[in-house]
Amino acid sequence: MGVDVEDLIAGLRRGERRALARLLTVVEDGGESRLRHVVAALYPTTGNARVIGVTGSPGVGKSTLTNAVATQLRGRGRSVAILAVDPSSPFSGGALLGDRVRMQGHHADAGVFIRSMASRGHLGGLSFATPQAALVLDAAGFDDVIIETVGVGQSEVEVAATADTTIVALAPGMGDGVQAAKAGILEVADVFAINKADQPGAGKLESELRGMLEMGHATEDADAPAGWWPPIIRTVAVRGEEIDALMGAIDEHTRHLDDTGERDRRVRRRALHLIREIALEHVRLRFARLGQRDDPLLDDLATRVAGRDLDPYAAADELLAALEGGGA
Amino acid sequence: MGVDVEDLIAGLRRGERRALARLLTVVEDGGESRLRHVVAALYPTTGNARVIGVTGSPGVGKSTLTNAVATQLRGRGRSVAILAVDPSSPFSGGALLGDRVRMQGHHADAGVFIRSMASRGHLGGLSFATPQAALVLDAAGFDDVIIETVGVGQSEVEVAATADTTIVALAPGMGDGVQAAKAGILEVADVFAINKADQPGAGKLESELRGMLEMGHATEDADAPAGWWPPIIRTVAVRGEEIDALMGAIDEHTRHLDDTGERDRRVRRRALHLIREIALEHVRLRFARLGQRDDPLLDDLATRVAGRDLDPYAAADELLAALEGGGA
Repeated sequence: MGVDVEDLIAGLRRGERRALARLLTVVEDGGESRLRHVVAALYPTTGNARVIGVTGSPGVGKSTLTNAVATQLRGRGRSVAILAVDPSSPFSGGALLGDRVRMQGHHADAGVFIRSMASRGHLGGLSFATPQAALVLDAAGFDDVIIETVGVGQSEVEVAATADTTIVALAPGMGDGVQAAKAGILEVADVFAINKADQPGAGKLESELRGMLEMGHATEDADAPAGWWPPIIRTVAVRGEEIDALMGAIDEHTRHLDDTGERDRRVRRRALHLIREIALEHVRLRFARLGQRDDPLLDDLATRVAGRDLDPYAAADELLAALEGGGA
Repeated sequence: MGVDVEDLIAGLRRGERRALARLLTVVEDGGESRLRHVVAALYPTTGNARVIGVTGSPGVGKSTLTNAVATQLRGRGRSVAILAVDPSSPFSGGALLGDRVRMQGHHADAGVFIRSMASRGHLGGLSFATPQAALVLDAAGFDDVIIETVGVGQSEVEVAATADTTIVALAPGMGDGVQAAKAGILEVADVFAINKADQPGAGKLESELRGMLEMGHATEDADAPAGWWPPIIRTVAVRGEEIDALMGAIDEHTRHLDDTGERDRRVRRRALHLIREIALEHVRLRFARLGQRDDPLLDDLATRVAGRDLDPYAAADELLAALEGGGA
């Protein structure tokens, strides 16, 4: 098994797509020691790719935007990996997401790699797997890694913790406007794309968004990147309109990161996020294993809690005390 | 603060709806010590409500089904609480989910309590908050608590861990059929509702579902409830059609739980789930606090990982070792 992973890592370093695909399956399917081995081996050679996050509600055209951005990057000769993360999809690996068919313009292009990913093997799900998949793509030598994810739950916060530049996509006519969009998107956006801007309501959506950004600016939190005001670009991705402007905004943000020291802050934040996710997954696995092997302590705690003899908080205290005392 | 929560708990015991609503806000917004206080105080009086989970993809008519089931239960004079959990919604508390307007038939009925919930204050999100909200509703004395949740991510597994009986709702014409439905739904379903059964494709959907259940039965896992084959009920919830049949299937499952000892197994599983979620949230909070207060160890680890001098798995090991040594 160790040899197998070593072969894949060597294959990745020779630029083999098949080895890359199989390493991403290791990230996705888990197997704690294999994954650890892969990430530890590849980590020293990461940190070179630009990671772009694309997030937004279903139906705003994230895939089309991602495709259009990838086309722009390919036009400059940059290699691009696209990681499509769908927290609501059971599909992954070989099976492509439904809207991945739109990516077919790239299918014969060796400079583009497309992979969809679902959470399978990990208790921590995609918040655990996504940053590690991004590391594998980074180590594979892609100039740009685009992580596209549906903004549900905490996913947009998680993509922002992994990306250098996060694009939040909105669209008019989604029935909700910005007010209904999650408050979280304002915090994570480095660039806004108002896609489907040829449809009625694009102007109103932009005004609402500007209003909310100004309100947010007035109560600016300490964590906001100094001196960066997220630009709002109106795009019609399906026709490639204003994608150059969107690309310009991404590049400008890249320069901003370099010029202000904000990049260092983000690299550090990403490291912190990754350390925490890995440590949490370790704890989750330990708890899950305890449950599986009928640990006497957990068994006793569950019986007492089920019988209403002990409240679940007091039981959790006992469990944690035992774990910290090296009891498990 | 303690007095405040004590007052709310006393109010809940007197049947005050306002106290119930405010206690659910405590569950939702967090504040570790307040929440702990509430759950520990109420826990001994829980365990009496029947908890019914309703899950399925967006658009299958979960809210309408939930409404129709609640109407049936009210017709028997049972009191009903509905907890609508939407992992993708930023709304909660006073603000109702969009489709809650359909519930207006119940708005003047004191025997029905409806609450929508989003994850706000907790790192563990809804998997942490939902079972505790169900406990509060249980303690409030409702005969039935219905937890309705969109099946994204792990949410359907989580609702099943909290419910006595889990209804998985499907609908024809969703473009995907059962194959595309998440594999997880087969494992968690006690009852299937094929809703919108007046639309084309209901028969095909039922055949596909039966086929998948038979396949699953052939490779039956040890965890499956003995002797229970999930019935498939075709409903048209919007017109109240076959809701009595659905209700009959739920009642039959309730009897099955009582007759086979499966209820005890589920009560125990629920206790285990809750203990683990609370312990995990404690660990998450500890990691989050470390990051906020510039803990010297985490600071050093993040710097070394950011600089590629240390891989994130080795850093997580150091963090966990320090925590277990009582270092934080």
